[in-house]
Amino acid sequence: MEKIRAAIVGYGNIGKYVLEALEVAPDFEVAGVIRRDPTQVPAELQGIPVVDSITKLEKVDVAILATPTRQVEHYAKEILAMGIHTVDSFDIHTNIVDLRRSLDEVAKAHNTVAIISAGWDPGSDSIVRALLEAIVPKGITYTNFGPGMSMGHTVAVKAIEGVKNALSMTIPLGTGVHRRMVYIEVKEGYDFNQVAAAIKADDYFAHDETHVMQVESVDALKDMGHGVNLTRKGVSGKTQNQLIEFDMKINNPALTAQILVCVARASFKQKPGAYTMIELPVIDMLYGDREALIRRLV
Amino acid sequence: MEKIRAAIVGYGNIGKYVLEALEVAPDFEVAGVIRRDPTQVPAELQGIPVVDSITKLEKVDVAILATPTRQVEHYAKEILAMGIHTVDSFDIHTNIVDLRRSLDEVAKAHNTVAIISAGWDPGSDSIVRALLEAIVPKGITYTNFGPGMSMGHTVAVKAIEGVKNALSMTIPLGTGVHRRMVYIEVKEGYDFNQVAAAIKADDYFAHDETHVMQVESVDALKDMGHGVNLTRKGVSGKTQNQLIEFDMKINNPALTAQILVCVARASFKQKPGAYTMIELPVIDMLYGDREALIRRLV
Repeated sequence: MEKIRAAIVGYGNIGKYVLEALEVAPDFEVAGVIRRDPTQVPAELQGIPVVDSITKLEKVDVAILATPTRQVEHYAKEILAMGIHTVDSFDIHTNIVDLRRSLDEVAKAHNTVAIISAGWDPGSDSIVRALLEAIVPKGITYTNFGPGMSMGHTVAVKAIEGVKNALSMTIPLGTGVHRRMVYIEVKEGYDFNQVAAAIKADDYFAHDETHVMQVESVDALKDMGHGVNLTRKGVSGKTQNQLIEFDMKINNPALTAQILVCVARASFKQKPGAYTMIELPVIDMLYGDREALIRRLV
Repeated sequence: MEKIRAAIVGYGNIGKYVLEALEVAPDFEVAGVIRRDPTQVPAELQGIPVVDSITKLEKVDVAILATPTRQVEHYAKEILAMGIHTVDSFDIHTNIVDLRRSLDEVAKAHNTVAIISAGWDPGSDSIVRALLEAIVPKGITYTNFGPGMSMGHTVAVKAIEGVKNALSMTIPLGTGVHRRMVYIEVKEGYDFNQVAAAIKADDYFAHDETHVMQVESVDALKDMGHGVNLTRKGVSGKTQNQLIEFDMKINNPALTAQILVCVARASFKQKPGAYTMIELPVIDMLYGDREALIRRLV
């Protein structure tokens, strides 16, 4: 069997877990890792090409973008135009349709496939939300996140004057309402109460119940576990009170990385264009013979 | 907008709920109902064509098969050959691949689409199982059914000598192990203990913990609620202990009927052939503008 050659673009938290997921996938091999400074080669990358441009790698079939979300469009366009598929976990919900349009055009022009916003939310949660709305068309879905670290909120706290280091945890209160637990180290010369007030006034926090706490070491609190509880109560046909719940407790970057790898696999089964995960047949994400999968999973 | 004209083939429990689901779907209209005795026209079918053959209905786009599962193949082949799509909830897990092959051939020859085994299990549960295996490739999935009435087991009890009426409830004990609670009315002249022993010895029950109880009225116990609890614990990449759970408490025939209607919608977005639900993009099951769905659900 010829293996799919995947390049990892960006080698932060997600990139490291993508490497692990590729190493255990039976149908993939690592073509290389692209990072700004290719002279940084940690132990686990020994023997793997580490370069500063994808053009320096041999025969890449698909690029797994593990870059910051705002750089996804730039890299994806460039790589799709080289005839290489891309997958990403772009997570700015309000811009997904625009990204899909933009990458769809490039992908079609270069006979490639882009799968976008492929993580757990957006991503696998989106598939569950879409499925629940199909089978229970009327009603309300609540997506409850956490407990877990919010990357976006943590970055927002770090940007506030007087904050030396921060961690913002998302705590689910049900019905899509969340509490923010913010742990900070305060810079010398700043008053904790003033910094805390500035955090609570920030647009990221002003609308949620927010607690700010001063700690000696933010690093000592960090854990990459996360969770989601997604519920839908509604109506199938004319029948009320259909109750469905989806619940996860997971290592956040490990799950995101695994999902990127399984949509990379699916990219080879789609026609040129850009897709979100709800547009893919789930079977295409799986390794193995189609009839054997149907026999085992349907 | 031109509506999809759907025929309901068979008008038992599922057929009745299919009618309701079609009546509230914005993109469907009921072309008619096919039943063995078309002179039986209950109140809710007034004004709807009720016939004994689909050939007597005007312009049918899709036939929703609400027949006993063993008649699915026969009806589906006949109807697909007329150029009409079919959807069914064929539920004999071990024969799904064979049915798919058989209908795939007929569908492709007549430029039609068959979507098979579209209920909640097989069906929406299959999508969840496939998704969980994609995102957590190593580990064990347990599908726990109930509490709810098992149609297959109930039929098996009724076939045993001395049983006048029966109900077999499936009770989940976790890790895919189930208890069978069997409620029976005993025919005159039969001994309850002997009948109970025959039930417990039947192949349907011999491998599970089974309790048989004599009741005055089986009908007084019947409820169409059902449930499933599907769990997976496993590994994403090299990261252990990823925990996912999917849980439903639902009206069984109402959910099955709604799923038949949403895959009937999806049938118009597939190329000719036969498909199980894990082979369909979930978005195709939903009514509405594609980008609006992505904006709302991804």
